[in-house]
Amino acid sequence: MKILNKCVIGTILIAMLGVGYVSAQPGQRRPEEPLPEGFKPASTNTFLSQYPAVNPITQQAMFRVNAPGANIVQLQLGGQHDMKKDEKGVWWYTTEPLVVGFHYYAILIDSVQVMDRGSEAYFGSNWESSGIEIPEGPEGDYYRFNRELPHGHIRSIYYWSEINGIERHINVYVPAEYEANPDKKYPVLYLVHGWGEDENGWSVQGHMANIMDGLIASGKAVPMIVVMPSGDIKTNSDVREARGDVTEIYVQNLVPYVDKTFRTYTDREHRAMAGLSRGGFQTCRTVFPNMNKFAWLGTFSGFFVRDGDVINAFDGVLKDADAFNKQMNLFFISTGTEERNPKEMVEVLKTHGINIIVFHESQGTAHEWLTWRRALNEFAPKLFK
Amino acid sequence: MKILNKCVIGTILIAMLGVGYVSAQPGQRRPEEPLPEGFKPASTNTFLSQYPAVNPITQQAMFRVNAPGANIVQLQLGGQHDMKKDEKGVWWYTTEPLVVGFHYYAILIDSVQVMDRGSEAYFGSNWESSGIEIPEGPEGDYYRFNRELPHGHIRSIYYWSEINGIERHINVYVPAEYEANPDKKYPVLYLVHGWGEDENGWSVQGHMANIMDGLIASGKAVPMIVVMPSGDIKTNSDVREARGDVTEIYVQNLVPYVDKTFRTYTDREHRAMAGLSRGGFQTCRTVFPNMNKFAWLGTFSGFFVRDGDVINAFDGVLKDADAFNKQMNLFFISTGTEERNPKEMVEVLKTHGINIIVFHESQGTAHEWLTWRRALNEFAPKLFK
Repeated sequence: MKILNKCVIGTILIAMLGVGYVSAQPGQRRPEEPLPEGFKPASTNTFLSQYPAVNPITQQAMFRVNAPGANIVQLQLGGQHDMKKDEKGVWWYTTEPLVVGFHYYAILIDSVQVMDRGSEAYFGSNWESSGIEIPEGPEGDYYRFNRELPHGHIRSIYYWSEINGIERHINVYVPAEYEANPDKKYPVLYLVHGWGEDENGWSVQGHMANIMDGLIASGKAVPMIVVMPSGDIKTNSDVREARGDVTEIYVQNLVPYVDKTFRTYTDREHRAMAGLSRGGFQTCRTVFPNMNKFAWLGTFSGFFVRDGDVINAFDGVLKDADAFNKQMNLFFISTGTEERNPKEMVEVLKTHGINIIVFHESQGTAHEWLTWRRALNEFAPKLFK
Repeated sequence: MKILNKCVIGTILIAMLGVGYVSAQPGQRRPEEPLPEGFKPASTNTFLSQYPAVNPITQQAMFRVNAPGANIVQLQLGGQHDMKKDEKGVWWYTTEPLVVGFHYYAILIDSVQVMDRGSEAYFGSNWESSGIEIPEGPEGDYYRFNRELPHGHIRSIYYWSEINGIERHINVYVPAEYEANPDKKYPVLYLVHGWGEDENGWSVQGHMANIMDGLIASGKAVPMIVVMPSGDIKTNSDVREARGDVTEIYVQNLVPYVDKTFRTYTDREHRAMAGLSRGGFQTCRTVFPNMNKFAWLGTFSGFFVRDGDVINAFDGVLKDADAFNKQMNLFFISTGTEERNPKEMVEVLKTHGINIIVFHESQGTAHEWLTWRRALNEFAPKLFK
């Protein structure tokens, strides 16, 4: 008598598990044909999926959808592209070269927008989306896992929000040294996602832990706690109506919870906030009326002033340049060069006398994750110094 | 001049973000019609989705797919069900009463199996699946978030596996009291998922943190660290071939990493392992040849012996009942009454003299999450005592 070999066990298990499980379509996930020369499975795929495949040299991506029963299959990735059906009912599309970093995409099956099941799920546009990481060596070093470094832990936590009337989920990056220093206190950066994403965006799509691990290990950034909340107001399924404003939730419920739960400095000099896109706007809306609680802020692709009258925007908080300069330590504004650029507004503010602005442009990138990974990598070293 | 109001900002943002983002289909997610009497959005939905909806009294679920361009739309949930199209091209299906707890499901659009985009993504069957939680009051109390209790944190960690040649992801439940007791050491339970799921299964689908928080707060279980690894051997996208055996990875890479990283007791009396389904089988395969490292084990819906000759199975480790009883403290075997039941094999082992078996049957449940939530709730209190 011996332990069942893996194949037999596999068969038994698949048979057993078939009842409650969605049946597998291995053909979709493990095509028998080898990948074309130069292509490899994207790092964003589920671990058994060969496609989508990426070519690290040409930066092209190749998509494959097994849908013999469909009439039209399209790829939605920076525009809509018709895929081409082969004789087996498999649909194919190879892209032009893409920008390095993370991109959302979707598949349209007879006009119904769905996830590509070769991809892991990434929350974007307020639902679970497909995503693809386009690799490139030198650019990615700072946001890749480096086995030589000490690693912080990201903690998944639910805290009770009185205002929201429900438990809210946060992810908290705790630096590697935290537990080895049980008497040391740490500054805190609150880091917010953008529209349609959620509190997992920075850790999953943004690789923020790798970025922070590298900055802290090299001494470029001081060890800090990074709290990543949701910028959306979820309600429980019995209520489903927005209650409270997210700024109130942050200031009245989240900050006290974090200060109670972690060894933090609780003064404004040791508290920063930043966000990307809508999260950058939420940062301005949260920090400006609460400058007694925050001394540092950053807005990544998220400095929005409708009519451009930036000096009078945000309830006039920027009007008295001297007062603002004295109160805040850093006003970090960043953008990709290929998206709407707040450069002119930044110039107006500087001319007006605001001298704590640091303006960062990410070359050749748009409203996308590479812009924000770079922004965090520039911003975090400037904090708490 | 004032801060842009939310509507305007919303419009600007959606316009700005439209470039890089998958365009939204709000109609699919927020139908204007109110939910039918007695139904509410499932707790497993993305936060804007009204459907699928559940009726807590009748335990029925109602599915909705907006797919005017499709010819056939089906729901795959314990069988395949044709959905019915209304005059607007929206497809509907209402189920019979379902078992309480978590169920995977999929949608078939013209025979292509896809996720329902109303649902959050749950990794099952080796890809991102839709899931629905069927609520029930009394059953769920022990696995729901309880704001009155101290809460452990789940840490998301990558550790380097020399055998796997890649960083591997684990989730680690650290009890609420851990940081308040910087000199205290803790026992460790290694808890493994089943086939087609991943290291997130126990924390997401299983609500293990709520279960452990409750058991520890009530004094039923001793405070312990729970390590949830992947039972699959992922490789990086350059390799994509299985290297090493998962047992070797656990014993040679994971256990030393955990003992180095956390304040653990490192003797066998303070180390347990359990798993569900294939994870239960992996537990037997890991613990039996390493009984110098583990003194407690549990297999939930995962006690598989092909020909039923249980006394001679697993390389004969159960043959000498006295030796086995002396060496191990607990051999916990559980099952749902509605799945393949190892009851007879358990009886044979007991008659044979193995007296450290605890056998648990989950009434009325099959190979599904309610079985395993109950199993953990029964198993954890018996450990390290």
